[in-house]
Amino acid sequence: MTKLYFYLDEPGAEIWQPAFEAAMPGVDYRPYPHWGSPDEGPAYLFAWEPEPGLVAKYPNIKAIFSLGAGVDHLTRDPDLPTDIPIIRMSDDGLKEGMAEFVLMTVLMHHRYMPRMIASQQKREWRRLFPPLASEVRVGILGYGALGKVSAAALKPLGYQVAAWSRSEKEPEHGVEHFTGTEEFEAFLARTDILVGLLPSTPETTNLLNKDTMSLMPKYASIINVGRGTLINLGDMVDLLDDGHLSAATLDVFVKEPLDQESPLWDHPKVIITPHIASITRPKSAAEYVARNIERIEKGLQPENLLDRYRGY
Amino acid sequence: MTKLYFYLDEPGAEIWQPAFEAAMPGVDYRPYPHWGSPDEGPAYLFAWEPEPGLVAKYPNIKAIFSLGAGVDHLTRDPDLPTDIPIIRMSDDGLKEGMAEFVLMTVLMHHRYMPRMIASQQKREWRRLFPPLASEVRVGILGYGALGKVSAAALKPLGYQVAAWSRSEKEPEHGVEHFTGTEEFEAFLARTDILVGLLPSTPETTNLLNKDTMSLMPKYASIINVGRGTLINLGDMVDLLDDGHLSAATLDVFVKEPLDQESPLWDHPKVIITPHIASITRPKSAAEYVARNIERIEKGLQPENLLDRYRGY
Repeated sequence: MTKLYFYLDEPGAEIWQPAFEAAMPGVDYRPYPHWGSPDEGPAYLFAWEPEPGLVAKYPNIKAIFSLGAGVDHLTRDPDLPTDIPIIRMSDDGLKEGMAEFVLMTVLMHHRYMPRMIASQQKREWRRLFPPLASEVRVGILGYGALGKVSAAALKPLGYQVAAWSRSEKEPEHGVEHFTGTEEFEAFLARTDILVGLLPSTPETTNLLNKDTMSLMPKYASIINVGRGTLINLGDMVDLLDDGHLSAATLDVFVKEPLDQESPLWDHPKVIITPHIASITRPKSAAEYVARNIERIEKGLQPENLLDRYRGY
Repeated sequence: MTKLYFYLDEPGAEIWQPAFEAAMPGVDYRPYPHWGSPDEGPAYLFAWEPEPGLVAKYPNIKAIFSLGAGVDHLTRDPDLPTDIPIIRMSDDGLKEGMAEFVLMTVLMHHRYMPRMIASQQKREWRRLFPPLASEVRVGILGYGALGKVSAAALKPLGYQVAAWSRSEKEPEHGVEHFTGTEEFEAFLARTDILVGLLPSTPETTNLLNKDTMSLMPKYASIINVGRGTLINLGDMVDLLDDGHLSAATLDVFVKEPLDQESPLWDHPKVIITPHIASITRPKSAAEYVARNIERIEKGLQPENLLDRYRGY
């Protein structure tokens, strides 16, 4: 019987148990702190941000499955044994989750939900009259796999969808393409709702600053679901306060969790979500873990095994 | 040249001007209070909630176009001249708007946005792990034109969509049907997110009460975009507070605007919107007004002319 240690110190973590029990019939599921003694025999660990030093106390752990695609929440533990295989998450729910979240937040910006939420807090009945979707220009900044599924989710509603990427991409039906530095300004100038989906690199750091965000039309808004480094948040708040930008939804931050003292939390034009746009889903993730435990037990290499030397 | 008086005392009202200028090239567009003198010749009025007595001061107004489908915001003015034709709004944006709003709010409930918004207000970084869309059962309560476009918008995301209506409807691909009183309980028992789209009748009044809402699964949630009479709100708040229901988004109320003293405004599990799910859109509404001014100028009867005797 497979023993599975589970570590996720967050409210709602109990929804994972039925998912694992369905994917791995008969699993001996042990949520932390009910792991028992290491002497009870080999176990696999499925974890997010385990306490530093914890894994070292359980030499019976055969492999660690990371709950997310990133693994720095594991490798920053100085006591983590270097010989335990670490498997990165790559479940089918990630793309679907991003498409849902982008669709939801674009609709929320289009239908003025940030202002509705602020009005509710003031007990204010304030009707606003939005444009038709066909009049709204959405711009996807970064056009990899997640940008593509997001654009595909938006098109059926009638939005004018464009995408910007550093290098030429194959043209797709109904999505206007902008490429490279020379077309970046034109992309910003035509974008009412910008969806940030860029990775964090030196080139993308502070790419959205006072100069570039000022090129967007008045009342434009920003949704950031890629990496926190994309935006100079001080500049963004200035542009929200002077009325050039109308709203921002931020799911990612340079430092997470977002500092409790940050003034962003109660900015009336800002919606904060805790890095959940594209999130591992219990069902598909549990199936992924089940499949890879089976591979390991058969002596095969699991999918997405971490290369500790390269770091990914 | 057609003179158009415009009255809408709300933030964002300036977005209407370009819509009218596009639909009526050369229009002499005059937003209140820049109407000028009544001696400048005949004018049409497009209005929402004009000040009582204002219309009577402008005997040059030939006809009034109501911004909404309802006209009580005009007829409650005791000084309103009885001989001015009033035209009710009926624009193509209404169905599209409802489909967008239902899709947005179902995504918000599925992705736990009511809880995220409440967490933000407490400066709390609280990650939650939602199910896949294919695991979420949405139920449309009321399956007329607006229910159908809403179901059609939800299906591509993979939700399990069912609909309930009083009488048998033609089966449609991918939407499970429940009909009549005898299947109402089964409909509730399988519905995680309920979308209320019923008209207000004696049969639908308080249809959602403690007994019926208790039949929904634990953590079910409710979106009401039909009529406020559908729900016994006291019962609903009890079920939110004892944890049986997880969230509610309410766009319609028995009395609107919602009373400033209502405890709903700051209930942490309730999102309030000011009756804007299905809302008049500038572009299609301006085209409707242009078309009907043309009919009036040609001596034809405009569409949706108010019968002042019947009241609609």
